[in-house]
Amino acid sequence: MATPLGINLSFCVKRWVTPSLWAPVVRDRLGLDLVQFSFDLVDPTWPDEILDDLAAEIAAVPERHGVTVHSAFIGLAHYTFNQMLHPDPRVRDIAERWLGRAYRFAAKAGIARVGGPLGAIASRVDGAEAEAIPPADYDDLIARMRRLAVVAAEAGLTELYVEPTPMRREWPWTVEQARTMTADVAGSAVPWRLCVDWGHGTFEPLYGRYRARMEDWFEALAPEIGAVHIQQTDFQYDRHWDFTEAGAVDPTAAADLLARTGLADRPVFLEVFYPFERDDRSILEAVARSAAILKTAFSRG
Amino acid sequence: MATPLGINLSFCVKRWVTPSLWAPVVRDRLGLDLVQFSFDLVDPTWPDEILDDLAAEIAAVPERHGVTVHSAFIGLAHYTFNQMLHPDPRVRDIAERWLGRAYRFAAKAGIARVGGPLGAIASRVDGAEAEAIPPADYDDLIARMRRLAVVAAEAGLTELYVEPTPMRREWPWTVEQARTMTADVAGSAVPWRLCVDWGHGTFEPLYGRYRARMEDWFEALAPEIGAVHIQQTDFQYDRHWDFTEAGAVDPTAAADLLARTGLADRPVFLEVFYPFERDDRSILEAVARSAAILKTAFSRG
Repeated sequence: MATPLGINLSFCVKRWVTPSLWAPVVRDRLGLDLVQFSFDLVDPTWPDEILDDLAAEIAAVPERHGVTVHSAFIGLAHYTFNQMLHPDPRVRDIAERWLGRAYRFAAKAGIARVGGPLGAIASRVDGAEAEAIPPADYDDLIARMRRLAVVAAEAGLTELYVEPTPMRREWPWTVEQARTMTADVAGSAVPWRLCVDWGHGTFEPLYGRYRARMEDWFEALAPEIGAVHIQQTDFQYDRHWDFTEAGAVDPTAAADLLARTGLADRPVFLEVFYPFERDDRSILEAVARSAAILKTAFSRG
Repeated sequence: MATPLGINLSFCVKRWVTPSLWAPVVRDRLGLDLVQFSFDLVDPTWPDEILDDLAAEIAAVPERHGVTVHSAFIGLAHYTFNQMLHPDPRVRDIAERWLGRAYRFAAKAGIARVGGPLGAIASRVDGAEAEAIPPADYDDLIARMRRLAVVAAEAGLTELYVEPTPMRREWPWTVEQARTMTADVAGSAVPWRLCVDWGHGTFEPLYGRYRARMEDWFEALAPEIGAVHIQQTDFQYDRHWDFTEAGAVDPTAAADLLARTGLADRPVFLEVFYPFERDDRSILEAVARSAAILKTAFSRG
């Protein structure tokens, strides 16, 4: 069975910002028919009447171009503010309400799944990093996830994702933490599953060279994994390069690994970021070449 | 006369997020006493009662550590959404209101100057880039800048900055455009001046190798320049590296150039960004070394 291959709209940020721009780019230029929407294109804090119009556009326009929106994901803009682990509990409340608005926007846009990272604690003045977030912060996060699942169910969503990130100040960052967290939110009003990223689980400065393996995530957590982010990277940073760049990720081996670990049916989204100042034309060429490379790798079998 | 040297709080984003964290880092670890606040630490869309408390903290805490906040600047989070050149005029209105809230927050925090880039038009599906934004969009932007200056004056601000960025979809990106824009907003309720960035004016892929020179900006626009961003970069992208990295910017030559062009009294802010996943300790070390390098270069004369 061929793995469903799509693209996160991260590459469209500040460029192809409306469905009438990004849908033809995805379908006609990249030859893809599946996307993951990015909240770097629409901020759920915008007023209801504007969000409603923008949601209606997303519900209508991509379909006319033959593009399906699988899910909607937190982008770098919202990720910037420490979200539900900010040291000020009032800012955590703001982040929780932000997600509620994101769920309602997604539901109105016909997008049934929403996900992303959940938050980051602050750093210490001396630069020392604790191995784990404090237990009280973890408990607070789990309570918020349970409440959010109720909001998501009321909005009509079917699935929520947490995206593990390779940082001790965020959560979860290990396979074991991810397993514990999914168990701790089991039975939520809408299921919380994982979206794992090829450049997160392989970040050697955090995990060490021999523990930074996607195999570990896929083998231990297969039933909990709902979607996968793929990128080219060197395992030294979370690069989010496209596949025209040289790196450590082999697309064919990636497809084989997903098949071997029983994940061939999970959608895989290319997630790439470019400098704001790079020219549009070279980005379109690079993303199109990357989509072609991934399609070849993921359509076998 | 020694150039006032400070640091934009971009390096604190998602790490040292409150004044009681960043003020001691800036004063004790970096040995600096001047900062430019970043709206990546506080989003002006947050509710008034929380903003008021956070503003009161910024008005009180940095001073106790011997740190002065010169200005507040738009960060990457707000920059993400095309701001006042978004194709949807309603989103432009949202960005204009965002700035009004940013001005009121800054004023309450005791920060008299606010700035940043103004917006980006969308890209075309075929990747072709126009040389200039459409005249109607430019006129709309100027009208918004004039209105915003009134809001800033009412809030009690004394100066606004526009930061030129090296992109045809944004504005201004040439010396001539910057000169025209400052003339077109002359006489605003609060003066609009420029904050130029060492890695923007030198971006060779846009300007060509022989036109990508900070000299041109400083010589032509000296009276209009209110502040300067410095970074290490290779002129091939807008890197925002620190000065532990090898690059094309020589700090001593930079200080000499500012003195030669009559800008020795303008504050210069180091603006550096790091991958979210990089460890805190190595960032503190790199920023501290960079601050030391710049202090040596800028304190002569």
